[in-house]
Amino acid sequence: MSAVNHQIRLAARPVGLPKPSDWSYTEEPAGEPGEGEVLVKILYLSLDPAMRGWMNDARSYIAPVGVGDVMRALAAGRVVASNHAGLAVGDHVTGLLGAQEYAVVSGDAVGKIDPELASPPTYLGTLGMPGMTAYFGLLDIGHPAAGETVVVSGAAGAVGGVVGQLAKLQGARAVGIAGGAEKCRYVVEELGFDAAIDYKSQDVAEGLREHCPRGIDVYFDNVGGEILDAALARLARHARVVICGAVSQYNATGAMRGPSNYMSLLVNHASMTGFVVSDYGDRYLEGVREMTGWLTAGKLVSREDVAEGGLERFPETLLRLFEGANTGKLVLRVAADE
Amino acid sequence: MSAVNHQIRLAARPVGLPKPSDWSYTEEPAGEPGEGEVLVKILYLSLDPAMRGWMNDARSYIAPVGVGDVMRALAAGRVVASNHAGLAVGDHVTGLLGAQEYAVVSGDAVGKIDPELASPPTYLGTLGMPGMTAYFGLLDIGHPAAGETVVVSGAAGAVGGVVGQLAKLQGARAVGIAGGAEKCRYVVEELGFDAAIDYKSQDVAEGLREHCPRGIDVYFDNVGGEILDAALARLARHARVVICGAVSQYNATGAMRGPSNYMSLLVNHASMTGFVVSDYGDRYLEGVREMTGWLTAGKLVSREDVAEGGLERFPETLLRLFEGANTGKLVLRVAADE
Repeated sequence: MSAVNHQIRLAARPVGLPKPSDWSYTEEPAGEPGEGEVLVKILYLSLDPAMRGWMNDARSYIAPVGVGDVMRALAAGRVVASNHAGLAVGDHVTGLLGAQEYAVVSGDAVGKIDPELASPPTYLGTLGMPGMTAYFGLLDIGHPAAGETVVVSGAAGAVGGVVGQLAKLQGARAVGIAGGAEKCRYVVEELGFDAAIDYKSQDVAEGLREHCPRGIDVYFDNVGGEILDAALARLARHARVVICGAVSQYNATGAMRGPSNYMSLLVNHASMTGFVVSDYGDRYLEGVREMTGWLTAGKLVSREDVAEGGLERFPETLLRLFEGANTGKLVLRVAADE
Repeated sequence: MSAVNHQIRLAARPVGLPKPSDWSYTEEPAGEPGEGEVLVKILYLSLDPAMRGWMNDARSYIAPVGVGDVMRALAAGRVVASNHAGLAVGDHVTGLLGAQEYAVVSGDAVGKIDPELASPPTYLGTLGMPGMTAYFGLLDIGHPAAGETVVVSGAAGAVGGVVGQLAKLQGARAVGIAGGAEKCRYVVEELGFDAAIDYKSQDVAEGLREHCPRGIDVYFDNVGGEILDAALARLARHARVVICGAVSQYNATGAMRGPSNYMSLLVNHASMTGFVVSDYGDRYLEGVREMTGWLTAGKLVSREDVAEGGLERFPETLLRLFEGANTGKLVLRVAADE
């Protein structure tokens, strides 16, 4: 008898913040793996700001999730049945398994992880998509030099926290922008940033003047909006702006807000470059190898914010990203690893 | 007896389009050159969109013109008195001579030009600041490859017209955006662009879809605003956006309009890079040499729009840039070359 699989499906395209009625909670048999496939019991779902974009019917770097489809989600789980030569029952894997309790997928579409080396949530964070996003975005596009000043927004988030730590490993100064005193404390005291600016209680432009007296050499943007404009106004000559996300704008119901200070690029001979981590598919293993090395050597701190309550809590847990409620990588525990 | 020198001075900082009362017309003796200096009789003034920025009291790549000062302007003239070993009476020169009839300047601050090779207005256009702006911006930042599609706004202007021609010389396709049927005809028939989009009578987004079926590889922007947004929406993967100017925004009295489609940079792994031609001071002679070679070989067409009426017409002539009234490089004839 197949196990029961519950699923979170997209019921309607959201306008603004996703509402409960934009989702449906469904039930069907978990199914059996066919040739080359595995059945994975999902332990943790990854909650990522990019999910909001996947819900829109718009041409982007990836096709939108169809209305009625299981929500696209990265996840970590345990193989419970296998018809794939490389994977055995009990192996831990990550991949695009969807917002559900069980997934039948090609064994080639998942990656085996080692829970002795790092926890499954860490494989969804620092050793997963957010960590690789930080690695390639900062090092390949921002390429900070020793002594330069790197500023990152969303600094207490899954990507931003890694960006600042990688900047420090390159010998650069790291300044984070985050919301709230506790996040700022975390960024400086736990992650080792040189300074943090609390955008909820401080003027960001003033904070940037104070902490970046010679300007910003690399600005890694996760948020867009006013903070992007404040950073643009403070660029150093030949600055590199890395566009990784714009979480402040993802739920906007009107037009997206463009950076009105973009002419700072002209004045400073600066560049603004966007990317998505899938652009680096051919170098992904390099990123995982490097990041694993730093993590196991104690040079990188990884923190995950684990939401409890099972799959049904997916809709409300996702909203925490847009409220800025999480510190570190936000994951939802779907099942115990037993 | 020193000649009489008339001058255009900044009388007040303009709000929006410069008004007549933002200028004063003054008179003083032309003066005598001191040691190492020359007295230049100005023949042509260069009218450039960048002038509008110089009139604002804002931190930029160059100090603002002070209220009461002679308006900063590039100009071409003839040496009428010299205390500089390298320059003789009768030599033609260009430089930042100011909006006036005569200038006393260091001989080291002007460049000798050869009126047998090209006319003084051409030295203010294709062989001057606008031409070098096109050369370095397109080739050093846009670096179009053969077969790629280059789109340029302000295509009938001094910079844009050169950008499209240089794109063609690199083996790329050139698509211009300009205002009005006559400018579009000029761009295609006289300058050799592959196509032109008339933003006054056509939908730019539709025109870009038609003429850039595989997307835009290089977008060279002189205008900002809606046209920049339309181009961003049509980028090819790994596109390069060159930010050279934003003439649609220079007289805005509210906040500058930022490009709301900037997340297209993320989707397409594209970059947006700004510059001013003075960034290339150390390579300026290379640019002049290359451009002179192409011009004299007949590979580049240069056109100037020569306004008549003398120095007093400076304020109204400047406005023609913001009305889009000029085709080719706009200059004002200040005196006959006699």
